[in-house]
Amino acid sequence: MSKGLPKRSEDYSAWYNELVKKADLAENSPVRGCMIIKPYGYSIWEKMQRALDDMFKETGHTNAYFPLFIPKSYLSKEASHVEGFAKECAVVTHYRLKNAPDGSGVIVDPDAKLEEELIIRPTSETVIWSTYKNWIQSYRDLPLLVNQWANVVRWEMRTRLFLRTAEFLWQEGHTAHATAEEAVAETKQMLDVYATFAEQWMAVPVLKGVKTPNERFAGAEDTYCIEALMQDGKALQAGTSHFLGQNFAKAFDVQFANKEGKLDYVWGTSWGVSTRLMGALIMAHSDDEGLVLPPKLAPIQVVIVPIFKGAEQLSTITEKVQPLIKSLKAKGISVKFDNREGQTPGWKFAEYELKGVPVRLAIGPRDLENGTIEVARRDTKEKKVYPMEGLEVELEQLLEAIQVNIYQKAHAFRETMTTRVDTYDAFKQMLDEKGGFILAHWDGTPETEDRIKEETKATIRCIPLNAPAEAGVCMVTGKPSAHRVVFARAY
Amino acid sequence: MSKGLPKRSEDYSAWYNELVKKADLAENSPVRGCMIIKPYGYSIWEKMQRALDDMFKETGHTNAYFPLFIPKSYLSKEASHVEGFAKECAVVTHYRLKNAPDGSGVIVDPDAKLEEELIIRPTSETVIWSTYKNWIQSYRDLPLLVNQWANVVRWEMRTRLFLRTAEFLWQEGHTAHATAEEAVAETKQMLDVYATFAEQWMAVPVLKGVKTPNERFAGAEDTYCIEALMQDGKALQAGTSHFLGQNFAKAFDVQFANKEGKLDYVWGTSWGVSTRLMGALIMAHSDDEGLVLPPKLAPIQVVIVPIFKGAEQLSTITEKVQPLIKSLKAKGISVKFDNREGQTPGWKFAEYELKGVPVRLAIGPRDLENGTIEVARRDTKEKKVYPMEGLEVELEQLLEAIQVNIYQKAHAFRETMTTRVDTYDAFKQMLDEKGGFILAHWDGTPETEDRIKEETKATIRCIPLNAPAEAGVCMVTGKPSAHRVVFARAY
Repeated sequence: MSKGLPKRSEDYSAWYNELVKKADLAENSPVRGCMIIKPYGYSIWEKMQRALDDMFKETGHTNAYFPLFIPKSYLSKEASHVEGFAKECAVVTHYRLKNAPDGSGVIVDPDAKLEEELIIRPTSETVIWSTYKNWIQSYRDLPLLVNQWANVVRWEMRTRLFLRTAEFLWQEGHTAHATAEEAVAETKQMLDVYATFAEQWMAVPVLKGVKTPNERFAGAEDTYCIEALMQDGKALQAGTSHFLGQNFAKAFDVQFANKEGKLDYVWGTSWGVSTRLMGALIMAHSDDEGLVLPPKLAPIQVVIVPIFKGAEQLSTITEKVQPLIKSLKAKGISVKFDNREGQTPGWKFAEYELKGVPVRLAIGPRDLENGTIEVARRDTKEKKVYPMEGLEVELEQLLEAIQVNIYQKAHAFRETMTTRVDTYDAFKQMLDEKGGFILAHWDGTPETEDRIKEETKATIRCIPLNAPAEAGVCMVTGKPSAHRVVFARAY
Repeated sequence: MSKGLPKRSEDYSAWYNELVKKADLAENSPVRGCMIIKPYGYSIWEKMQRALDDMFKETGHTNAYFPLFIPKSYLSKEASHVEGFAKECAVVTHYRLKNAPDGSGVIVDPDAKLEEELIIRPTSETVIWSTYKNWIQSYRDLPLLVNQWANVVRWEMRTRLFLRTAEFLWQEGHTAHATAEEAVAETKQMLDVYATFAEQWMAVPVLKGVKTPNERFAGAEDTYCIEALMQDGKALQAGTSHFLGQNFAKAFDVQFANKEGKLDYVWGTSWGVSTRLMGALIMAHSDDEGLVLPPKLAPIQVVIVPIFKGAEQLSTITEKVQPLIKSLKAKGISVKFDNREGQTPGWKFAEYELKGVPVRLAIGPRDLENGTIEVARRDTKEKKVYPMEGLEVELEQLLEAIQVNIYQKAHAFRETMTTRVDTYDAFKQMLDEKGGFILAHWDGTPETEDRIKEETKATIRCIPLNAPAEAGVCMVTGKPSAHRVVFARAY
């Protein structure tokens, strides 16, 4: 197959857009800003969901489902929440269509106007906390540890497949606790879950940190985040975990009786990751030939391409590879045998490169004679001939090695692309010439942060959780600073 | 715990509503007609999803995701489809809110009116077939076998938890084929999948049949269905599978080149089951004490309640049951040890009865002496003392026996509640006095069907797939009929 992918070095943005479409991950829908997640893309998302869901359950959470619609008035109950979310909402005003009198199709029935408009959830804190009011009476009802997998809508003006879409899929955890300490511990625990998932499943190294007040979730006391670095040197926020304090409990009057019978507002958290992770996965590892998928998230881990002339050779090869297919499946390795006759082996090789299949096997007549098979790695493009005998063990180890290698490569890249600077001039030069994460001193004020953002388009990605104390002065104002923060231009 | 459930015999409808709430399955949301699926209810739905999803994948389908929004004009493209769905749609007209000038909250921003209104999907044929146009060019692209798990909205005026809600969760399969025969075979295959799931997982026997033209899906050539019988003698449509002919292909111009290079419209199917299945599950088996869950769908299959005074006894019991818990888990049996100290054993017994846990174990000081444990079945309420030794094997068999027994009980009930009648008077009497499925002759006209519905509130549930040929006359008009059809009052 002809790939026709732009090169990353020439047009990274076009490369990403084309890769998402050509690798059958997603495409734009007829509705502006919404995407269609195609079967191959969705099967990667399903693997992400399964792994995350298992981790949520291991940490004591259960799933539930809350309504798509939020009464308009709910948004106003938490003051900063409404500021953050009201501006980009899909609003349902009517509940019926009718035939146009002129026969031209259907029109909105003016008689079917809702008394109160409904918002399509941009996030569900308001509807969930209004429910928690009835679920929580006493300390015995706490902690309440609930997650939901859902679609949400934010009316973004500029959209890109997976990275920023009007509708996206996500999970949102919403928990309630008796003490601030417990809620903070939950917030940090879920940040750790996200970091573990990003690093061990997606093979994407992440920085863990806390957002500045400017970048906080609307309604949170603190927003923790994981930040990943893409190959073009831009940062991508891959997940957030919010300590909500008692803000939503107060807005929705959620109180509990403690062991002494005294009433107090409960403490909340919320945390989420979305189909945006697909964007991070694609941009972190892929190359000019196509996707590079970490084996743990690859829908097809091993593909076998037979090289044959005529039905007889194909039949001999098919017979030869059956035991291998069986033993790979027995090890839980997903394997595809591509015996299509209409396409050449070269075409198939290119297709599976494009789709990021971690290991490709090729077997032809000479291999049959020698009892061998050619093994090609997607990540390094190395090829090597192996004996068929005992191959399933080799492949299992190879998949593990690929998972580790992809992570290490991304980690090494991030290390190379992380720079300490001490002056604003050096900062601006670094941004333009190299990009990446820049560690710099900042005076801690929103004014300076805003100024930097306006002048350079770089934002403070986070204050790292493990930032060592280091006395310094703000690169812009010269005021004192106790540690460096992480700047980058970001998606 | 005090259950306070109404009795089925006194008020079946109130019994259902209260059971759904008290067993923590679902509750009404602040938005009229929408429900909140609570963690316990959602965990049953997750088990349903997993089992169905596995069956879809085994039959060659893959999941994808299509947008929540459908442009208004799309609905009009298939003539009968718009008639069926336009009347009950949630309509998005605006994309922004703003602060009210008087500071009273937020209002819809009149400047943010959409050029074309968007409908929240009531079902996704239109947006999916508009996409398939780009995915299908040649016979090589067929069959296209796609499913999606999603939320949909139909603005129902009278709603009931799980049975009829404005927003509900479902899966919708949408497939495209080269021939009518293939598409019909797919339609029937998915009906079989649904029937197998209903009978083997939900333990609910179902009739398989085809709908009359009156009851067809809007836009289908034929609608196949599975029909279940509830304990109050009313029928419940549990799943539908539609042969769409070339209707949507023509509406959205989806053509393919066959092997000879000739263009033709593709043939379609769609099929779906929803959270309505939860209603069927609840109503088919439960009793005046609460839920009765088939073991295959029970979130907790075995609960262990310790009977103890003081920490020392609890500790001895805990130690004693640990090996049992471990060996049950090793067998994939979900087990809960309820060691809460604040509640009496009797309270716990009542709670797990209410929640439908199939097997309850109770162990107290005398059992410790004797090496025994009391085993109580939820379905028959039988109790029996077993030796602890080898109990995990007994329990595994018991769970299987319960699964079978629940099905057989429902099956026997349906047999008792299925009656053949030959006159319209007997039909009306049977409906009022007994209910259930009524097999009767019908002349095949929509007029007679409408008359029966209007006069008796009974509808033709289906023309059974295996209906034996039997010459007769319509009970209403006396016109000839070739076989009996199934009537019932229905949810």
